[in-house]
Amino acid sequence: MTINLDENAALLIVDVQQAIDQPFWSEHGPRNNPDAEKVMGSVLEHWREKARPIFHVRHDGQSEGGNYYIGGKTHGFKAEVTPLAGEQVIGKTVNSAFISTDLEARLKDQGIHQLVVMGVITNNSVEATVRNAGNLGFDTYLVEDACFTFAFPDYAGTLRSAQVVHDMSLANMDGEYCQVIKSTDIL
Amino acid sequence: MTINLDENAALLIVDVQQAIDQPFWSEHGPRNNPDAEKVMGSVLEHWREKARPIFHVRHDGQSEGGNYYIGGKTHGFKAEVTPLAGEQVIGKTVNSAFISTDLEARLKDQGIHQLVVMGVITNNSVEATVRNAGNLGFDTYLVEDACFTFAFPDYAGTLRSAQVVHDMSLANMDGEYCQVIKSTDIL
Repeated sequence: MTINLDENAALLIVDVQQAIDQPFWSEHGPRNNPDAEKVMGSVLEHWREKARPIFHVRHDGQSEGGNYYIGGKTHGFKAEVTPLAGEQVIGKTVNSAFISTDLEARLKDQGIHQLVVMGVITNNSVEATVRNAGNLGFDTYLVEDACFTFAFPDYAGTLRSAQVVHDMSLANMDGEYCQVIKSTDIL
Repeated sequence: MTINLDENAALLIVDVQQAIDQPFWSEHGPRNNPDAEKVMGSVLEHWREKARPIFHVRHDGQSEGGNYYIGGKTHGFKAEVTPLAGEQVIGKTVNSAFISTDLEARLKDQGIHQLVVMGVITNNSVEATVRNAGNLGFDTYLVEDACFTFAFPDYAGTLRSAQVVHDMSLANMDGEYCQVIKSTDIL
């Protein structure tokens, strides 16, 4: 499958900060997609080559001691997705990149209709952002091999692996809020 | 557990229309929480007795032939949750009740900070609405026995029962966007 994207399709990179490597996240088991950061790096490089718009969404945690705390040691971007000068950075304080930010206004001002999303974690900030993107009318694609999540117990207490959590989240989103794709569909 | 609610805590009832009884939804297997509508009826009755604000969120589908199509035969509310004169009805065209509507403005105008949510389906319009409610700063409670969903295949093709879909969705929301509760916590 090859996706034909607009010249100004925007890349949204969600919450890929050093915080996500902290032990807190893997309390219930390991993450999936161990190569996701490499894939993110390739997609980002492709966007830079094409000179398409790039939005680095950064979680600015407000709780001192939290992994994503804005004043903490692990708040910085991971090496593979560190912004270059001139690339847009959107600081957010909640899960969705569209709430507490001017992201929607910026996209509209720049005439952007298509969004390609990647980042962490699939079922939390990525899913919240993709659900909003789709509902706000953006033509939204989610690069599933450039996302990952972690194992967790469901509400009944059954432990679900990271891959199952990821696959359930993708099923919630695909065809309803976005189209789920692979990086090879756009590279 | 007993939840102490504000005098003006609002009840949000999401997408409980005749459409949800159509065979389309149970293509992959039966729903969970078969008593959900009875529970919804009890919670609604309690809100009416307390004279607290009630918002009936109605999905106004735009696709002719769809179950929720605004001009279709199954667009009406289910009997258990039919609005009374004077109760507020919010028509929406996407999944989240906060997008394409004036719901946020109405809640703020009415000085409402607490939301109690119930409806269908757990992992789609309910989850989209709860995620937005929490991220917008509302103190949000989800009555899990007054919600239900259906079986579906995850993105890898593995069929997941309605109860598993429900429990995974609740785990995404609980403690992050809302507090998941039982109807007995508030009745």
